[in-house]
Amino acid sequence: MPGQTPPEFDKSFQEKLDSLLRWRRDVRRFRRDPLPDGTLEALVERACLAPSVGNSQPWRFVRVRDGARRATVRAEFERANADALAAQAPEDRTTYTRLKLAGLDRAPEQIAVFCDESTAAGRGLGRRTMPETLRYSAVGAVFALWLAARARGIGVGWVSILEPARMNAILDAPAEWTFVAYLCVGYPEIEDDAPELERAGWQARDERAARILDR
Amino acid sequence: MPGQTPPEFDKSFQEKLDSLLRWRRDVRRFRRDPLPDGTLEALVERACLAPSVGNSQPWRFVRVRDGARRATVRAEFERANADALAAQAPEDRTTYTRLKLAGLDRAPEQIAVFCDESTAAGRGLGRRTMPETLRYSAVGAVFALWLAARARGIGVGWVSILEPARMNAILDAPAEWTFVAYLCVGYPEIEDDAPELERAGWQARDERAARILDR
Repeated sequence: MPGQTPPEFDKSFQEKLDSLLRWRRDVRRFRRDPLPDGTLEALVERACLAPSVGNSQPWRFVRVRDGARRATVRAEFERANADALAAQAPEDRTTYTRLKLAGLDRAPEQIAVFCDESTAAGRGLGRRTMPETLRYSAVGAVFALWLAARARGIGVGWVSILEPARMNAILDAPAEWTFVAYLCVGYPEIEDDAPELERAGWQARDERAARILDR
Repeated sequence: MPGQTPPEFDKSFQEKLDSLLRWRRDVRRFRRDPLPDGTLEALVERACLAPSVGNSQPWRFVRVRDGARRATVRAEFERANADALAAQAPEDRTTYTRLKLAGLDRAPEQIAVFCDESTAAGRGLGRRTMPETLRYSAVGAVFALWLAARARGIGVGWVSILEPARMNAILDAPAEWTFVAYLCVGYPEIEDDAPELERAGWQARDERAARILDR
């Protein structure tokens, strides 16, 4: 029988992993200090260990450092967020304006994650009936990066209030790449094990979500 | 300043997390022994710690235990997989038929993950320009469950060779739930830190995937 002896993950590791999942958080308030050299590269390396459909590894990373480009991303966020505010139910608007929804102002690192729809890797395996699993694979990479970051005391915030087609244009990304996520990365200003949107009174834990239907 | 003191994740934990990411694997060869009582529920609890857009927590879980329903799922996989084989490039077909693409035959636990498109949780926040982030949130739940499982020596295999609309019908799931993943869960028969599709010569690591574009 093929195979290797896997590492042992003991009870103490399991508990720490639980703690990591609980403390992960979407961070929008960053300190300005830069990450040590090589850190972002190390996080991307971990992201590439995510599962992918047919082992297609369709994630693509664009690190955004140029000040003008960052300003354009921020303007695009402001534009999309103003539209989103206008679309909110009238009774929610005051609360909405009080929310801080992105760390674009201070996050020392910003990285966009795309999905390469044109990749030949995986030879299409596993995605004939569910082509969306290619994007889902890129989402896995985002989550792996997030956990690897948090384990190093680094926070990640996922900004989704952006128009995907505009993001391809702003970041000069190939047309066959689907924009999946824009991530702010840096040391968090505060730490908490409750989501910021819960603390702000926007959305608490939804007990229905943990229910399991039996079939 | 609000906030709490977070747990410390030291170097040793970081390395073990790396190891967990490396050994995660998509498992298709399961032992038949059942999971201890309460295990699947514990894994779902961890899944619910995933990030979600606007804290919408749209993941929904359907545990499939009924033998007739499992047989129908398996037949649906066989049907979709025969179609997929026919669609493969002629030179790939022989290799394709040799691949084991699902653990539906033996996995002691099977659980489907859906995304509730109708949830009011999160009040639409963050998904006006990118409604797909609701599905992406359910994908995060899949990945969190996967890692929590692997940390307990339990393997997960994601089956995507299924027609989503048929899965709603087979599992009697509400029409407003989008089918995201069908997971086989159980103890793996073999362990390896290389993907099965790599070992089978289908798709190796794609070095392009780890490249970072600078903008």
